[in-house]
Formats: sequence, C-alpha cells, structure tokens
Amino acid sequence: MNKSKSKAGFYLLFLLFLVLFKPVAAQKLVFQDASHFYLYGKAENTPNAYHRIDTAKYSDLPPVVKQLLTNSAGLAICFKTNSTAIGAKWCVTDKKPGNNMTHIAQKGLDLYIKKDGKWQFAGVGRPSATCNEFTIAKNMDNSEKECMLFLPLYDELKSLEIGTAEGSKIVGIENPFRKKIVIYGSSIVHGAAASRPGMAYPTMLSRKTGLYFMNLGISGNAKMEKAAARMVSDIKADAFILDCIPNPSPEQIKERAEYFVKTIREKHPKAPIIIIQTIIREHSYFDLTVQSHVKKQNEEITAAFNRLKNAGMKDIYLITSEKLLGDDHDATTDGTHPSDLGFYRMTEQLAPKITNILAQYLIK
Amino acid sequence: MNKSKSKAGFYLLFLLFLVLFKPVAAQKLVFQDASHFYLYGKAENTPNAYHRIDTAKYSDLPPVVKQLLTNSAGLAICFKTNSTAIGAKWCVTDKKPGNNMTHIAQKGLDLYIKKDGKWQFAGVGRPSATCNEFTIAKNMDNSEKECMLFLPLYDELKSLEIGTAEGSKIVGIENPFRKKIVIYGSSIVHGAAASRPGMAYPTMLSRKTGLYFMNLGISGNAKMEKAAARMVSDIKADAFILDCIPNPSPEQIKERAEYFVKTIREKHPKAPIIIIQTIIREHSYFDLTVQSHVKKQNEEITAAFNRLKNAGMKDIYLITSEKLLGDDHDATTDGTHPSDLGFYRMTEQLAPKITNILAQYLIK
Repeated sequence: MNKSKSKAGFYLLFLLFLVLFKPVAAQKLVFQDASHFYLYGKAENTPNAYHRIDTAKYSDLPPVVKQLLTNSAGLAICFKTNSTAIGAKWCVTDKKPGNNMTHIAQKGLDLYIKKDGKWQFAGVGRPSATCNEFTIAKNMDNSEKECMLFLPLYDELKSLEIGTAEGSKIVGIENPFRKKIVIYGSSIVHGAAASRPGMAYPTMLSRKTGLYFMNLGISGNAKMEKAAARMVSDIKADAFILDCIPNPSPEQIKERAEYFVKTIREKHPKAPIIIIQTIIREHSYFDLTVQSHVKKQNEEITAAFNRLKNAGMKDIYLITSEKLLGDDHDATTDGTHPSDLGFYRMTEQLAPKITNILAQYLIK
Repeated sequence: MNKSKSKAGFYLLFLLFLVLFKPVAAQKLVFQDASHFYLYGKAENTPNAYHRIDTAKYSDLPPVVKQLLTNSAGLAICFKTNSTAIGAKWCVTDKKPGNNMTHIAQKGLDLYIKKDGKWQFAGVGRPSATCNEFTIAKNMDNSEKECMLFLPLYDELKSLEIGTAEGSKIVGIENPFRKKIVIYGSSIVHGAAASRPGMAYPTMLSRKTGLYFMNLGISGNAKMEKAAARMVSDIKADAFILDCIPNPSPEQIKERAEYFVKTIREKHPKAPIIIIQTIIREHSYFDLTVQSHVKKQNEEITAAFNRLKNAGMKDIYLITSEKLLGDDHDATTDGTHPSDLGFYRMTEQLAPKITNILAQYLIK
C-alpha cells in the first residue's frame, strides 16, 4: 500500500515536471493549400498549377523541353498576411541537384515582402528531402504584409501549403506587376546558378522595373524548334524576349531564328520582339574552342536579325552582349552560368535597355 | 578450313574497324601529385598538407573546430605550365553538402590563370563523387601560364593530382602574394555560400590587393575560446583580422573579446589587429529577434574595442558593418551567408579600408 502510494506520488511529480519544464513550443502555424492564391509568372493556365506550360498541346516538343517546363521557375504565390511567422510544407521530386546549384535554388522557396513600396528579401525555405516543412520568416511585427513566395527553380513542385500563425489573417492579392513579357531562353533565363529562386534574372527584372516577366527558361534546350516557336507565339504577351542564343549551334541559329521570329510576328503583329546575344562565357577567355563557338553564335543571330530588318520587319531589337556580366570575369559559378553577381549585373544592364525599348509600346 | 579462314577475316576486319573508328580521344593528361607545389593560404606547415592548422597542438579546442580546420578553405596550389589543358584527380569525404552551397564550392576546384598581370577565372573542377577526375580547362594556347588552383571550401581534401598534356611542362612557382594576414572568422570567412572556391572573400581580397590572406573561417564556431586565442596568436602573421562576431553570443563577446585580442597582442606587440563588426543579416530586417541579437553583438564588440583603446592598446582598429552588403538586401543566399554578390560587395568595401590601415605597417 505505501509502496503503491509512493509510486503514484512519483508519477504525479513526473507529470508536474513535464508540465512545468516542457520546451517552449515554436509558434503554431496553420497550413492551407497555396494553389488558390494568385500565381505570378504564369504564361497560361495549366492543368497542374505549378507547371509553366501545358505541353500536352505541343506533341512535337522534345521530351526534355516538356519535362523542364514542369519546373516552377519564375513562379510566385502572392498573398497578404498579418502573421508574425510564415512557413511552408512542400513536396518536390527526388531529382539530384546540379553541382553548380544550391538546394535552396533548385528545390527551395524564397520569400519577399513589400517594404516602403519595394519587394525585399525576407527568408528562404530550406529543403532537406522530397517533402519538407520549414518556417521561412518568424518573429516579425504583426502589421499587414504583402508577400511573394518564389517557387523552386529547377524542380517540379508537387504540392505547397502556406502556414501562418494561428489566429492571423491571410488573403490573396492580385497580380502586383504591369503588362506581360515572356522571356524564352536557356539555363541562364531558367536561373541555373542563382543562389535562391528570387535571384533568377527575369524575377530581378520584375522587381526592378515593375513589369511582369514570364520565365520560359528551359535549361540547355532553348533551341528554337518549330514546336517551340508555336508554343511561344501562343502566349498572350505584350512583348517577347529571346535569350536563347547560348543553346542552338551556329548552324541551328542560321536555320531557325528567322522562322522563330516570324512565327511570333504572325500572331503578334505589333508586339516588340527583343533578341539578346549570348553572354560571353567566362571560361572562353582561355578555351579558344568555346570562344570561337560563342563568337559564331553571336555572328549568326546578328546576321539573322539583319536579314529580318532588311526584309522590312518592324519592332524587332537586338541587345548585344558586351559587359552584360561586367569585366572582371568573376560573374559565373562555372564559366557559363551567372551567379547572383552575374544576375545582378545582367539586371543592371538589361533593365534600362528593355524599358527604353518597351516605353514606346507599353507605357502609354 | 574455309570456315576458320572467314572467321579470321571477320576478326581482322573488326580490329581494323576498331582502329579506324575509335572515338577521338580527349587530350591525354599526365597526372602528378600536387602536394610538392607551393600551397598558398597556409598558416603553418601541417602533417596533412591540405589541413589549415595542426590542431593536435591545441588539445582543448572544441572537436568541431578541429574538424572544420581540416577543410581546405582558402588554399590554392600554385604552378606554371604551357599545357593546353589542365585537369585534376581528387578525393574528398562523403559529407553531405549544405542546402545553401553548391557542390563545386564545397567539394570542387577553381582555377585562376594570370593574364595581363591579373588573376583571372579559367574553369572549375566539378565533383560528382568522393573521388573525381575532371578536365578544368582545355583548348588553350600553349603559352606559359601561371596558375592557382583553389581547393574545396567546405570539405577535407584527401588527395589531389594535377594533370597536364603529355609533353607539356609543369613547374612550381613561388608565393605570388605579399606579407601575411590571418582572418579568423565565421562561416562567412569560411566561404559558406560562395559559388566556387575562389569566391570566398579572403581570396577575393588577395586578388584585389596582392596581399596574402589566410582563411581561418570555421563555420559557425569562431567563438573566441581561449584555445582559439592561443592558436591564432601562434600564427606568424603581419596582421590579424577578426571577423568572428556573427558566432559568439553577446555575452560571450563581452567575456572573451578582450582576452582574445590581448593574447594576440602579447605575442605580436606591433602587429595591427582589425576587428570587423558582424554584417547585418538580411532576414533580420523582418526577424526582430535576430535584429536585436545582431545589434547586441555589435554593441558588445564596440564596447570591448573601446575598453581596449581606453586601456591604452595601440594598433587596433574596428571596421563597422554599414553597407558591407550594399543596401538592396539581395546579397545573401539565405539571409545570413553572402552569395558571390555579397562577397563582391564586401571585398569592394573592405579592401580599401584594410589596405589604408595596413599601409602604415606593411607597405614600407
């Protein structure tokens, strides 16, 4: 009897200990599916919200292009909340990261909050597996904040829930950017070596200019096929930027570029079309074969551009590649793919050039 | 008999086919162990060439610090060659990469070649396993080139062989930098989110100033323990930079900073000692807890610095953290760790401040 009493006493003390010394719980987040919020960066509605294009419509697109267009590059969920913490649960695939990428860029999330009228970095969602849960920002004041959550650059987002503090409000916001400009391009457009999703250059251009850029970067595979020309020309855009010259061979540029531009022009008689020469790859100052290849790519796109101009096509522009990456040759991760430093420099160079051109068309 | 003759004929034809249509071989490289070349960035000779410090001498250093000092951050093999291609075979450990790092930065190699008197990026060694072989630069002219091959930032290099084209020459070169300055610091010094090994900021400072910086970054663990003070003060350096403030708590800074500085001063009566405040973490513009923590860290190091000055210590300097990362809050990969953009900005800010201070001591 005494023994059993003392046993009961021990358990009571133990329970009291658990109650008194339980670890301070992290702020409890309530999660909801993100797909009903406005999704910035989309070129069209798609059966899977986080794909960029419904490629089922283009049966003759190369399979690798279809696969890459499932990546959520350049997309961002838009909402506002007074929550003091913002988290996410999300799933991606088990694809291995490239050796020139961070996991955060490839499979992670990147939160921006509007502050004093500007979109400002607030925190990242760090991935550790195919399905992840992470508190992206915490310990914030409880003012209402407009938020953009940028999605993984180089993976297919399978699901996403956004978490906000119990009792806080979260509602959708509308598209915060003006007009629509599509950028069809290589791994550089796709954001290959950005350190996090918000640092791909189309997204940086949006923040800098207030214009809506759609990221149609398709890592290494923006080769201007006829099917790609149909796909790009189907997009309801106010302007078209082609930054695809790093991917096709000089011969392919010669064969395909004019057809590609004309296909867009047929569907968009008045839209400006801006072609960007390929950047000079930073290892090509030593690798003479790459140097010569890049030079030929730029010669062929310049020649094709001149043929189009000479044939009377209006509203087309060529941006040349000098100084796009600065002049210290330290702007890439691997010689080819701009790091954040390279993307920053590209944005500083491209933004005024692009807005000067578009000013004649869009800002009326 | 006929059958066997025709069989022999078939084999002969097959062998001829193999000889005629063998794939064009990549240029054959001849490999040699790299450890007999000059190794830039070392603080002292160590039993394992690619470790930064022989930590066996400091038995009371925390085990994690000892482990981190086996990482080859900031080290580079120096040689010259007229080879048109440069490759490497190297082994690292099976440590998993951080989600804010590229594999190239953590486990890869980064080649710089001197061109027109400046060190210029030439190519990377991409890792794919624990043991790797990769051609870092190829198709170069056959002029003699001075080379620096930067080693993995965040892993222990187990072995390294350098490959040059058969018949080419490769010989060692001497230390190409002047004086010796050690930077003891956090993951930021260590180069956590640099995109490749040559982009950690101590290395960028070397290229920019011509001075020899030793990277004593110890990811998250530069907490100014007494054992660390002994280790740093044992280094034969002309100047000491402490960029460790992100790691210790405000209380630890209060308790440890003066002892740390005095320990260096005892062994180096005339050497300048430069303390750098912690960068303002970019997520701390929203995370008020981190904001307050960082503010307290900088208040404590400023107070400790002032106490040392008031007590009469000469030749100590404090660099404050304003604008070290610029002002757009886009200079980090994850809020804390500068990307290449952040390291570029830090280097641009720190180089003139550091050289102005050191001019009084070193450049005589």
